[in-house]
Amino acid sequence: MLMKIFFAGSIRGGRSLLSVYLQIVDILKSQGHTVVSEHVASVDLEEREAKITDEEIFNNDIGYIDECECLVADVTIPSVGVGYEICYAALKGKNVLCVYRDDANVSAMVRGNNRIISAPYKNMEELEKSFTIHLR
Amino acid sequence: MLMKIFFAGSIRGGRSLLSVYLQIVDILKSQGHTVVSEHVASVDLEEREAKITDEEIFNNDIGYIDECECLVADVTIPSVGVGYEICYAALKGKNVLCVYRDDANVSAMVRGNNRIISAPYKNMEELEKSFTIHLR
Repeated sequence: MLMKIFFAGSIRGGRSLLSVYLQIVDILKSQGHTVVSEHVASVDLEEREAKITDEEIFNNDIGYIDECECLVADVTIPSVGVGYEICYAALKGKNVLCVYRDDANVSAMVRGNNRIISAPYKNMEELEKSFTIHLR
Repeated sequence: MLMKIFFAGSIRGGRSLLSVYLQIVDILKSQGHTVVSEHVASVDLEEREAKITDEEIFNNDIGYIDECECLVADVTIPSVGVGYEICYAALKGKNVLCVYRDDANVSAMVRGNNRIISAPYKNMEELEKSFTIHLR
């Protein structure tokens, strides 16, 4: 099923996987989905967010999640914001898919949560396959 | 008001602030509160959690939050689990207090969230004062 997807990745927790986030957004779009949070995978995100308040960021992100059917999160890098968004989406009945590099130490609040599908990846091919399998 | 409190701190996100978590639990108890999640500030947590499944950890933690009036989180170290628990507690109508070392880069999902009180600390005296002010 083609879906409206909120992609969540670490921002203030650390941006070292930004290039992966960009590829995730590209794969999701190439599979026909709409990604409403392309800003998460944008190189100038911090610069743009510095111009608005934390309240505006919070309200924008919650608003985006509300209008989606699905949240996809990369949980490789620990992040309070990503954890918050995962819980919010799960409790609102959205589909939630969490992906992570296979060497990541992923939270039990994700791995032990039967409302959430989680899938490790070694490379972008595995990630693409995960999206094909789980987002349909 | 004396409360039943769930204390949330980073586990798989990193344990470098464990000594602070221990002091937080001690302060909360010395102020008369009950802390239901002393395991979060325990040195042998990882060892004990290795013996149970992620599903059991998830169900235990959610069960503990459900029986509390309040969640106190240290959000200095980024953590998906802590973010998840903050959102869960906030959406369940619990009091939520997030504290963080004043040099931490705290998520907008916490700082911009009017359901959550957040307070920086420089030292344990400030932390203690924060609890006195906000948990009454």
